[in-house]
Amino acid sequence: CFNPDTALVGVVTQGGRFPADWRALLRTCVSKGLHLENGLHVRLKDDPELVDLARRHNVELRDLREPPSDLSTATGANLDVDATIVLTVGSDCAIGKMTATCELDLEARRRGLESVFVPTGQTGIAIAGWGIAVDAVVSDFLAGAAERLVVEGAQLGNLLWVEGQGAILHPIYSGVTLGLIHGSAPHLYVLCHEVGRTQVEGDPTHSPVPSLVELVDLHERMSLKLRPAKVACIALNTAFVSEEEARAAVAAAAAETGLPADDPVRFGAGKLLDAVLERAK
Amino acid sequence: CFNPDTALVGVVTQGGRFPADWRALLRTCVSKGLHLENGLHVRLKDDPELVDLARRHNVELRDLREPPSDLSTATGANLDVDATIVLTVGSDCAIGKMTATCELDLEARRRGLESVFVPTGQTGIAIAGWGIAVDAVVSDFLAGAAERLVVEGAQLGNLLWVEGQGAILHPIYSGVTLGLIHGSAPHLYVLCHEVGRTQVEGDPTHSPVPSLVELVDLHERMSLKLRPAKVACIALNTAFVSEEEARAAVAAAAAETGLPADDPVRFGAGKLLDAVLERAK
Repeated sequence: CFNPDTALVGVVTQGGRFPADWRALLRTCVSKGLHLENGLHVRLKDDPELVDLARRHNVELRDLREPPSDLSTATGANLDVDATIVLTVGSDCAIGKMTATCELDLEARRRGLESVFVPTGQTGIAIAGWGIAVDAVVSDFLAGAAERLVVEGAQLGNLLWVEGQGAILHPIYSGVTLGLIHGSAPHLYVLCHEVGRTQVEGDPTHSPVPSLVELVDLHERMSLKLRPAKVACIALNTAFVSEEEARAAVAAAAAETGLPADDPVRFGAGKLLDAVLERAK
Repeated sequence: CFNPDTALVGVVTQGGRFPADWRALLRTCVSKGLHLENGLHVRLKDDPELVDLARRHNVELRDLREPPSDLSTATGANLDVDATIVLTVGSDCAIGKMTATCELDLEARRRGLESVFVPTGQTGIAIAGWGIAVDAVVSDFLAGAAERLVVEGAQLGNLLWVEGQGAILHPIYSGVTLGLIHGSAPHLYVLCHEVGRTQVEGDPTHSPVPSLVELVDLHERMSLKLRPAKVACIALNTAFVSEEEARAAVAAAAAETGLPADDPVRFGAGKLLDAVLERAK
C-alpha cells in the first residue's frame, strides 16, 4: 500500500521562490504528518507558521538547498583528493547531466568499483541524502563548496561522479558552472547534450546552444592550469527522437568530436564508462 | 582638523570573516560615535551587542556586502541597456581592475562624457555609494545581480565602466568572474595585468597566471553568444617596476596582443580611453 512519510517539493522555479498558493498545500501536508523536503531558494524554516505547525505535528522541515554555515573559499585541497574525479558538463542546463551522472555511477558500482555519486543540486541531494546545492552558496564560496564535496566524496570511494550544474556559456547560470569546474577539479569531463536542442532553455534572449566541438575545446581550455581536464566522452539525451534517429545522432556526435558517444539511458552506460576508465588510466 | 564620522573596515580577509579581536575595536569606534562600514562577508548586524551599542550611540552599521533581498536570476534586460558597457577583467584578482575602472571613468568625465563607475565590490561601493558586492550574492543570482547593476547604471549615464572581479581562470573566484561577465553583458573588455606577476595571488596551489594572448582569446570566446565582446585594450599596473621598465612592458604588451596598452595610473588613462571609444563606435 502507498504510505508516504515525506512530501517533496519536486519542482524548481526560476529564481527559486514559492508560488503563493503552495503554502496552503505545504501546511496541509504537515498537518497530515508528512515531513517536508524543499529544494527552492526560499526556506521552509523562514515561515514561522510552518515551523510552529511542524513542531506541533512532530515532522521535519528539510531545506535541501541550505548550504553548510561554515563554508569558505577553496584551499587547494581538491588537488590532493585521492580519487578519480569526473564532472558532467553540458551544452545547456536541464539537459540530463544528473541522470547521466547517476547512470554512470550505477554502472560502475555494478562492476564492483568504489564509485560515488557526488550531488551538487537539490534533486541529487534528495536522491543521495548528502551534498551541497552549489547554486545556493554565496558566490565567493562556490569553489570552496565544490572542493568540500570532492573531499567528502573521497571518503566514500575512489571514483567520484560529480553532478554538473548549468552550462559554461549559459547566460544565467554560467558562474555556478565555472565555480563547480574549478572547485571540484575534475580529471575528466563527460559532456552532455540533448539531441535537437538548439536554443538555451529558460533564457529569455534565446541564446544558441554552442556546438559540441566548441564546448569540448572551451571546457578543456577553461580547466584549472594545474589540472588540465579532458572531455572523455559525449553523453547524449535522445529522449525526444526515435531509436533510429538516436543511433544516427550518437554516430554523428562521435564523428564530430572524435570521442566515444552514447545515450546512457537508452543504450546503457557501459560504453561511456569504458571511455572514462580508459582515459583515467 | 581631522574629524571623522565613519570607521571603515578597510581590509578584506580571505573568506571574509573578522579576526576575533576586531570586535573590541569596532565597539570602541561605535562608542565614540562613529558609523561603521564593513565589507566582509560576516555582517555587523549579526552582532546583537554591536547593534544595541549602535542604537544607543545613534550611529549606523553599514554592511557593504549585504546584497539586496529581492535579487533573482537574470532576465535578459542587460542586452537592452541603452549604454556602452565596458568591463574590466584581469589576469588575476587584486591586480588593479578597480583602480583602472575608476581612472577610465574619471578621464571620461573630464572629457564631458556621461560616464559612470559601476561598483561590484565592497570598496567600489564605499567609494561610489551604490552598487552590489556580487561575490556575496547567492550563486544562482550572480548574473541577475550584475544585470541589475548595468540597468541601474544606465539611469546615470551612457558609458558604463563595470568594476571587474576575480579572474576567469582563478581557482577560487572564477565563478564570480564569469557570472559578472555574462550578467553585465559588456560590449568591450579592458584586460588588466600587473607587470611581473606570474603566480595567482592568494592561491595556495600557486597556479600560473595565463598569458595576455591566451586571456584575450578566452574572454572573447567566453562572451555571451548574443553579445560577442572584444578586448579593447590592455591596462598594465606597473607600480612595482621602474619607469623605464614600465615603458618597455607597455610596448611589449602592445606587441604581444596587437592592442593598445598603457598604465592608466602612471601615464594617465587617455590612451586607453581613446582605444575604448574607438572600438565602441
